[in-house]
Amino acid sequence: MRARNLAVVLATIHRSGPHTRAALAERTGLTKTTVSSLVADLLEAGAVTESGAVRGGERGRPGVAVSLSGHRVAALGLEVNIDYLAACVVDLTRTVRLRRTVPADNRSSDPALILAGLRDLVKQTTAEAEAEGLRVIGGALAVPGTVEDGVLRSAPHLGWRDVRVADLIDLPFAVDNEANLAALGELWFGSGEADFLYVSGEIGIGAGLVVGGTVFRGTFGLAGELGHVVVVPDGPGCRCGGRGCLEVYAGQDALLGELASVPELVDRLESGDREALETCERAGHALGVALTSAVHLLDPGRIVLGGIFAPLFPWLEGPVGGALGARLAQMRGTPPAVVVSRTGADAAVLGAAGLVIQQVIAEPAGMLGL
Amino acid sequence: MRARNLAVVLATIHRSGPHTRAALAERTGLTKTTVSSLVADLLEAGAVTESGAVRGGERGRPGVAVSLSGHRVAALGLEVNIDYLAACVVDLTRTVRLRRTVPADNRSSDPALILAGLRDLVKQTTAEAEAEGLRVIGGALAVPGTVEDGVLRSAPHLGWRDVRVADLIDLPFAVDNEANLAALGELWFGSGEADFLYVSGEIGIGAGLVVGGTVFRGTFGLAGELGHVVVVPDGPGCRCGGRGCLEVYAGQDALLGELASVPELVDRLESGDREALETCERAGHALGVALTSAVHLLDPGRIVLGGIFAPLFPWLEGPVGGALGARLAQMRGTPPAVVVSRTGADAAVLGAAGLVIQQVIAEPAGMLGL
Repeated sequence: MRARNLAVVLATIHRSGPHTRAALAERTGLTKTTVSSLVADLLEAGAVTESGAVRGGERGRPGVAVSLSGHRVAALGLEVNIDYLAACVVDLTRTVRLRRTVPADNRSSDPALILAGLRDLVKQTTAEAEAEGLRVIGGALAVPGTVEDGVLRSAPHLGWRDVRVADLIDLPFAVDNEANLAALGELWFGSGEADFLYVSGEIGIGAGLVVGGTVFRGTFGLAGELGHVVVVPDGPGCRCGGRGCLEVYAGQDALLGELASVPELVDRLESGDREALETCERAGHALGVALTSAVHLLDPGRIVLGGIFAPLFPWLEGPVGGALGARLAQMRGTPPAVVVSRTGADAAVLGAAGLVIQQVIAEPAGMLGL
Repeated sequence: MRARNLAVVLATIHRSGPHTRAALAERTGLTKTTVSSLVADLLEAGAVTESGAVRGGERGRPGVAVSLSGHRVAALGLEVNIDYLAACVVDLTRTVRLRRTVPADNRSSDPALILAGLRDLVKQTTAEAEAEGLRVIGGALAVPGTVEDGVLRSAPHLGWRDVRVADLIDLPFAVDNEANLAALGELWFGSGEADFLYVSGEIGIGAGLVVGGTVFRGTFGLAGELGHVVVVPDGPGCRCGGRGCLEVYAGQDALLGELASVPELVDRLESGDREALETCERAGHALGVALTSAVHLLDPGRIVLGGIFAPLFPWLEGPVGGALGARLAQMRGTPPAVVVSRTGADAAVLGAAGLVIQQVIAEPAGMLGL
C-alpha cells in the first residue's frame, strides 16, 4: 500500500508539475500526514526537491512546492549498433546529462568481446555521472535484433544468436529492440506527439508503432519488422530468406553501394550526383510502397523517419510522400504526414534511458529501494 | 460505487462460474450484506439465476449457487454485408439463440432502403426472441467498411459514405467494422484462442488482430486493412486507387471470375477443374505474400482464415502456408499456424452480439438499468 501511494504521489508530480503537500493531499485523496511522510521518503531518495513557495490547494495560502528532482536519480541508456556503441545518462526530469558514442565494427562479431567493450563504456559513463552527483539506479540496452524475455534471440547483422546480456551492471536492467526503444526516444525526447510510426533506417530497417503513448509490440514482442515487408514478391533474395524485402531496396547497404558512409552519400546528393539521386529515389519509392502496407495494417498517426533516413530526409520525402499519396488518398483522404525524427541517431539510446525513468515513476519504491 | 460493485460481482461469476453468496463475498472483499443486495438486483434483472447447492467458501457448508443466467438478458447482433443481411440473438451465457440471414444485393445501394430492410429484420428477430422470454438489451451492427465515432465513413462495395446508423433500435447500439467484429466472433464463439489474426475473405478482404483477447484497432480505428496491402507494386489498379493490392488477386471477384457463387467455385475445385485450381493457387500465393508482410508488422499468434476463405481453405492452405514458410522460416523458426475459422460466415454477426454481452458484463448497472 505504501509502495502504491509513493507511486501515486510521484506520478502526480511527474504529470502535473510542482505541488504543495496540501495540494498533493487534495489531488490524491491521501491524508496530509501520509503525504508528508511519503514526500519525506522521496526527498531522502533524491527523487523530488523542495522549491520556492507556490499557491497551494488549501485556502490559497502559499506553501513550499515539491517538484521532480534532476539532481540525483539517473538512468543509463546503452546501445550496441552495427557500427558503434553508445551510452547516455538521463536524469529523472528526462534531461540528457551525458552522451558517449564509440565507433566500432560489430558486424559478425564475438558477443563476449563487444560486451566487454560495452562494460568499459558503462564504467566510464557511470563514473562521470557520479562525479556530477548523480546516482545511476538502472539501465537498459538497445540491440538491433529480436528480444524475448531479456535474451537477444537474433541480431542477424551482428551475427549474434541467443545472447543473454544480464551482467553488464549490478542494477535493474532491461534489453529491448532498437526500433521500439527509438520510438520511445522520439516520444519522450522528440516532438511530443503520442501517435506515430517511428521508422529506424539502419543497416536493417525496423519500426516502432506508438499509439496513445504506448509501443505496440504484437503477440511475441516481434511486431514492427518493416524491413522485411514484401515490396516485390519475386525481387532479389534478402538475408532473411525472403525475396524483395524493403531492406533490399532501402537498407543502408543498398543506399550506400560502393560509398563508405552516409555523410559521403549526402555529399554526392548535395552535389547533384545522378547515380546517388536515382538510388535515393528508388529507395524512397520502395519505402513508400512498404509504408502503404504498414499504414493499412497498423493505422499510425504520422510517420517519423529516423536513423540514416533522417539525414537523407530531403531526398526521401518526395518519393515516400508521392507513393503514399498515390496509393492512400482515396481510402484515407489525407495520408499520414511523413516527418523527420527530432532525435536522430540518439533515439534508441535515449529511449533506453527513458524506459528506466518510466520504471522509476511507475515503481519508485522498488527502483529507489524505499 | 454500487455500479462498480455490481460489475465486480457479475464479472466474478462470468469469469469463474457459479459461486455461493459467501464465496462471492470472500473473492470480492465485499461484505455478505452488500453481496446479497447486489445479487438480489442481478436476479431481479435476470442476469443471474440460483441453481443447486454447491460447496461455498465458508467452512465448506453447501449453499445456493449463483450463476450467469441464459434465460433473460440477450443481445442483438446485426450485419449488413454485400450480399446479405444477417441478425442473431445471443444470451448472456453467449449461447446463440437465433440466427437469420436474408440474401440481398447491396452493391452500390441506397442506405435508406437497406436500413429499412434491416429494421424489419430487427423487429422480426426481437419479436422471436421475446417469444422465448428473452429481453434484448442492446445491439451492434457489423458493416463492411470503416467506422469512426459510430458513423460508417466509407463502405466502398456498398457505395456508402458517411452514413449514421443510429435509429435502428431504441437501445444501446454500436457500429463496427466487420473484420474487427468477426475477429471477436472467432474469439468468443470459435476456437477459444486469445492471440490470432482473423482474415475475413469477402468481396473485400479485412483482418482483425486479437492480442491477449483484445482487438488491436490502431490510431484511428482503421487498422487491419489487409486487402490493400501491396502484393505487386506495379500490379493491376485496385478500386482503392492503389495498384497490385491483395484484393485484386484474392478478393471474391478475383476468385469467382465468371462463376456465380462460392459453392460453384468449390464444385469446380472438387471436380479438379484446372482453371479453378490455378485461380486458387494464385490467390493463395498472393495471400501468403500479404500475410508475410502482416506477420512482420503485426506479429500475430496464429492466422485464422474466415469468410469465403473458410470453404476454400483446402485449396488455399497449401499456397498460403508455402509462401509463409519460404519467407518467414529463417527469421521466425516456425511461422504462425494457418487454420480455418470455426465460426464461418456467422463470425461478424456473432461478434456484434458478443460485443454487447461484453458491455453488459463490464457495466451491468447502465446496460440493465440497475
